[in-house]
Amino acid sequence: MATRLGALRAKLVSVNGYSELGSSVAEFSEADQQRCCCSCRVICDKITSTTRRLVYVFDEAVRMGKSDPRKIVFAAKMGLALIVISLLIFLKEPVIELNRYYVWAILTVVVVFEFSIGATLSKGLNRGLGTLSAGGLALAMAELSELAREWDEVLIVTSIFIIGFLASYAKLYPTMKPYEYGFRVFLLTYCNVMVSGYRTREFIHTAVSRFWLIALGAGVGLVVNICIYPIWAGEDLHNLVAKNFRNVATSLEGCIKSYLSCTEIKRVPSKILTYQAADDPVYSGYRSAIESKSQEDALMGFAVWEPPHGPYKSFKYPWKNYVNLSGALRHCAFIAISLHGCILSEIQAPEDQRELFRHELQRVGIEGAKVLRELANKVKRMEKLGPVDILYEVHKAAEELLSKVDRKSYVLVNAESWEIGTREKVQGEPQELLNFVDEENKVLEYKSRSEAALDLRSVRTDFGVKSRLVSDVPSENKIQMSWPARISCDNNAMPQLKTSKTYESASALSLATFASLLIEFVARLQNVVNAFEELSEKANFKEPDGQSAEEAAQPTGLWRWLNVWSKAEASS
Amino acid sequence: MATRLGALRAKLVSVNGYSELGSSVAEFSEADQQRCCCSCRVICDKITSTTRRLVYVFDEAVRMGKSDPRKIVFAAKMGLALIVISLLIFLKEPVIELNRYYVWAILTVVVVFEFSIGATLSKGLNRGLGTLSAGGLALAMAELSELAREWDEVLIVTSIFIIGFLASYAKLYPTMKPYEYGFRVFLLTYCNVMVSGYRTREFIHTAVSRFWLIALGAGVGLVVNICIYPIWAGEDLHNLVAKNFRNVATSLEGCIKSYLSCTEIKRVPSKILTYQAADDPVYSGYRSAIESKSQEDALMGFAVWEPPHGPYKSFKYPWKNYVNLSGALRHCAFIAISLHGCILSEIQAPEDQRELFRHELQRVGIEGAKVLRELANKVKRMEKLGPVDILYEVHKAAEELLSKVDRKSYVLVNAESWEIGTREKVQGEPQELLNFVDEENKVLEYKSRSEAALDLRSVRTDFGVKSRLVSDVPSENKIQMSWPARISCDNNAMPQLKTSKTYESASALSLATFASLLIEFVARLQNVVNAFEELSEKANFKEPDGQSAEEAAQPTGLWRWLNVWSKAEASS
Repeated sequence: MATRLGALRAKLVSVNGYSELGSSVAEFSEADQQRCCCSCRVICDKITSTTRRLVYVFDEAVRMGKSDPRKIVFAAKMGLALIVISLLIFLKEPVIELNRYYVWAILTVVVVFEFSIGATLSKGLNRGLGTLSAGGLALAMAELSELAREWDEVLIVTSIFIIGFLASYAKLYPTMKPYEYGFRVFLLTYCNVMVSGYRTREFIHTAVSRFWLIALGAGVGLVVNICIYPIWAGEDLHNLVAKNFRNVATSLEGCIKSYLSCTEIKRVPSKILTYQAADDPVYSGYRSAIESKSQEDALMGFAVWEPPHGPYKSFKYPWKNYVNLSGALRHCAFIAISLHGCILSEIQAPEDQRELFRHELQRVGIEGAKVLRELANKVKRMEKLGPVDILYEVHKAAEELLSKVDRKSYVLVNAESWEIGTREKVQGEPQELLNFVDEENKVLEYKSRSEAALDLRSVRTDFGVKSRLVSDVPSENKIQMSWPARISCDNNAMPQLKTSKTYESASALSLATFASLLIEFVARLQNVVNAFEELSEKANFKEPDGQSAEEAAQPTGLWRWLNVWSKAEASS
Repeated sequence: MATRLGALRAKLVSVNGYSELGSSVAEFSEADQQRCCCSCRVICDKITSTTRRLVYVFDEAVRMGKSDPRKIVFAAKMGLALIVISLLIFLKEPVIELNRYYVWAILTVVVVFEFSIGATLSKGLNRGLGTLSAGGLALAMAELSELAREWDEVLIVTSIFIIGFLASYAKLYPTMKPYEYGFRVFLLTYCNVMVSGYRTREFIHTAVSRFWLIALGAGVGLVVNICIYPIWAGEDLHNLVAKNFRNVATSLEGCIKSYLSCTEIKRVPSKILTYQAADDPVYSGYRSAIESKSQEDALMGFAVWEPPHGPYKSFKYPWKNYVNLSGALRHCAFIAISLHGCILSEIQAPEDQRELFRHELQRVGIEGAKVLRELANKVKRMEKLGPVDILYEVHKAAEELLSKVDRKSYVLVNAESWEIGTREKVQGEPQELLNFVDEENKVLEYKSRSEAALDLRSVRTDFGVKSRLVSDVPSENKIQMSWPARISCDNNAMPQLKTSKTYESASALSLATFASLLIEFVARLQNVVNAFEELSEKANFKEPDGQSAEEAAQPTGLWRWLNVWSKAEASS
C-alpha cells in the first residue's frame, strides 16, 4: 500500500514536472531523478512480490503433496498417459488412416482420466455408451437421409434439433445426474457423425474411426490409471467415515470441556452465525461431519463402479451402508450443534451449577467420545464389535447424570416465582389462609436453607457478571446478544427486575437443556451402533481378535501385486 | 414372477419332450403347444410392461416440464444452437479451410451450453482462457523444438509430461476447483497443438484455426443462451433463499403442532435416523434448508459471472450476502432439528405438562413462523424492513413462555427425590433435627397440594402408558428406544423403581429442553434479521411501500425486452 502511494505520488510529481514548463532545469532533473528512482523501486517491489508469491505457491504445492502424496502420483500418471497416447500417434504408419481423428484419443484420455478408479470407470462407461448409441442412431438416421434424397438436409437438421432437445431435457431429470456426461457425449457424437458424414458421405467411416480412437484413448487411460498405484474412491469413503467419527468425538469433548471451564464467549464469530468454515475445533469437528454428506454421496457413486479390491472383497460391496453409518453419526452431530449452541447462547447456566454436575457431565462426555473413537477404529480396522456391550459405560454415565439431575433439580428452578402461593391465596378458604401463609414462610425458610447449601446468591452474582461482560462486547460481535439488552431498555424499573429474574431462571434451565441434549446424544449412539452392526454384517468384517489389520486397508495395485509376487518368488 | 415360473416350467417340459425320445407324438405336440402359448404370453407381458414403462417415463417428463417450464426452454435452446452451428458448417464455401477442425465448434457448443447464464459464461471463459494460454505456450514450445532439431521428439514428449503433471496437480488444489474445466481444456489444447503440429509442421495453423472454431462455437452458444429467455443462476439463488425461509417456518410450525398434539411416534423412520430424504414435512423442511448449502455455493459461483440484469442492477451484486443470510437461517434450522429430536426422542414430557404450556408454546411457534414467512416475502419482493420491529411480537411471546416456565417450574422437577433432606439429616444439629422433620413434612404436604393442583398422578400414569406403548413397537422400528428397556431388564426390582422415577423426572425436564430450544430459536432470529438487513443495504432493496414487486423479479431477456419495446411502440 505504502509503495503504491509512493508510486502515485511520484507519478503526480512527474506530471507536475512536465506540465510546469516554466520550471527550472534543476527542478526538472530532480523530478526526473525521483521518477527514475521511483520506477526502479516499483520494479524491484514487483519482482519481490512476485518472487514472494511464487515461493508461496511453491510452498502450498509442497504442503499439498505432503498431506496427500496420492495427488502427486495422480498428476504423474496423467503425464504418463498423455505421453503414451502421443507416442502412439507419433507412430504414423499403422494408423495413417485415422490421423484425421486422433484428437479423439487425446480428448478421451484428458476427459476420462479422473482421480479415482471409480470415477474413471464411470466416465469411461458413460463415454463408451454415449458414443456407441449415438453412433448407431446416427448411422440409422444417415440411411434414412439417403432415402429422403433432396430433403436430406431438412431431415438431418430436424433430427439434430430433436436429438438435442431430448438429450438436454433428459439429462435435467434428477436421477439422470450421474449420466449427465453420457448425454453430452451422445449429443456430441451424434452431431459430429451427422455433420461430418453429410460433408464427406462417409458416415460409417466417421463413426467407426471415432469409436476406435475413443476406445484407444479410454484403454490407455484405464490401463495407466488402474495398473499403477490405483486410487480407490471406496477407500476414500471408508477413511472419510472413520474421520467423521473422530471429528464428532473431538467436538463432543470440546463442548463438555468449554462448558465446564465456563469459557467466556465474548465474541461469537460471525462465521459460526452464518455457518461458514471457521477455525474453532469444536465447530469444525461437527461441521465437517455434516458437510461431508455430498462428498460421501459422490464417493459412493464412484465406489459402486469399482471392482473388488484390497479388503473390499465382494461384488456389490455395501458402500451404501457406509453412507448410512455416516448418516446415523450425523444424527448425533446435530446434537453436538445444539450443545455448542448452549455454549454460544446468551443465556448461560451459572458456574456453580456446572461445577455441581461437573463429574457427571465430564464422564458422559469422555465415555461418549470413547465410544465414537472405538467405532472409528473398528471402521478403520474393519472389525466387528466384540461381545462386550460398547455402550455399557456411556449408558451408565448417562444414568448417573440423569439421577443426579433428578436429585438436584431444585437448583434448576427458581422457586421464588412459583405462583402456587398466589393461586392458593385467591382460591383458598379463609381458615386455611393462615396455615398456608405460615407454611409458605417455612417453605421460604427451607428454600433459603437449601440456597445456603448451594450458595445461590453467588450464583446470582455470577449471572450479573456474565451480563455485564456481555454488555462490554463491541456491537458487531454480539449480534446474537442484543435481545435482552433491548428488553431492559424498553421496560421500566419494575418489569426490568422481573425480566432479570426470569432470565436468571432461564439461565438455570439452560443446564437442564445441556444435560437433556447430552442424554439424547447418548440415546442416539444406539442408532449409530446399530448402523455399524448392519455394515459389519453385510461387509463381512472380521471378528475382533486384537490384531491390527491396518495393513489390510492399504492401497493395492499392479505395483503392489508385483512386489508381493517378487517377494514370494524370492522366498521360494 | 408367475409368468416367469410358467416359462421356466414350459422350458423344462420342452427339454423333457426332446430328451425322452421314446415318448409319444401326442405328448410332444402338447408340450410344443404349451411352449408356443407360453412364449406368446411372455412376449405380450414384455410389450405391456415396456408400454407401461414408456407411459411412466412420458408422464414423468411432462410432470418435470410442468413443474419447471424453463427446462423445456433450455432443451429447445440447446437444439437451436446445434442447428445453427450445423448450418454454419453446411455452408461449405467460406470456411472450407477449417473443415478439418469443425468438430471443435460442435464440441464447444455442447460443452459450454449450460443451464444458467452464469455457468455458461464461466465455462466459456474457462475454455477461452485455457485454449488461448495453451495455444500460446504450445507455439512457444514448437519454436523451441525447431531449434532442438533431432531432439525435438524428446523435447515434445518431455514437455507434454511436464505440462500434464503441472496442470493435473494444480487442478487438485481446493481453491482451483472452479477452474478445473479450464485446466482440462488447457491440457487438451496443448497436447493437440503439439501432436498435430508435429505431424503436419503447421503449429500456428492448428492453433489459430482451433481458436477460431472454438470462438465460433462459444459465440453461437452464448448468443442463443443469453438472448433467448435467459435463465439466471442469481435468480435461482434468490428464490432458493426465500424457499428455505418458508421451509424452516413450516418445520417450526410442524414441530410445535406435533409436540402439542402429543402425536405418538411409534416408528421413528430409519431414513430420519440415517439422515436420508424422507416424506415427513417437518423433517424435509429443515433438511432442505440444511442440504441446500452446496447448491447455494454452486449458484453463487455462477451468479458472480452474470452481468447486471432485471432487479439485480449493480455490478458486484452482493450474492455472497444471500448465502450468508441462508447460513444464518441454517443456524436456526439446527435448532429445528433439535426440536424435532425432542418429538422423536424416547423421553417424552407428559401430556398434561404440554397442555399447561400449550398457549405459550403455540404463540412462540406461530410468531416465529410469521417472522420467517415475512422475511421470505421481503427477500422475494426485495424490500427493506419497515420501521416496525419485526421481532417485537416473537420476543414478547418468548418472554411470556420464559416467565410461565419460571412460574411453573415446579412441574418440571421431581421434588420427591431431592436429597436436601437427607444431607441435612446427616449434617444437622440434634436440636434442629426435629424442626427440620416437621418442616419436611410440611413441605411434602405442600408438594402434595401442588401435585393435586396439577394432578401429577395422572402425569405419572401417562408416562407409564408411553413406556408400554413403546414396548409394543416391533424391534426394527424402535432402534432408538432400546436403552431403557435394557436397563430395566438388567436391574432388579428396587433399582428398577428408581430408574423409572429417574426417567419420569427426565421426561419432565424434556419440556424444559423443548422450551429452552424454542427460546434459543427466537434468540437466533435476531441474527437472521441482521443478515437480512446487511443484505438489504448492500443490494439496495427498495423501501417498503406496500406495493407488490413480484413482477420485478421476473426473468428478463431479449424476448421480454422486445415485448416491452413493441408495446411501447404500439402505445406511442
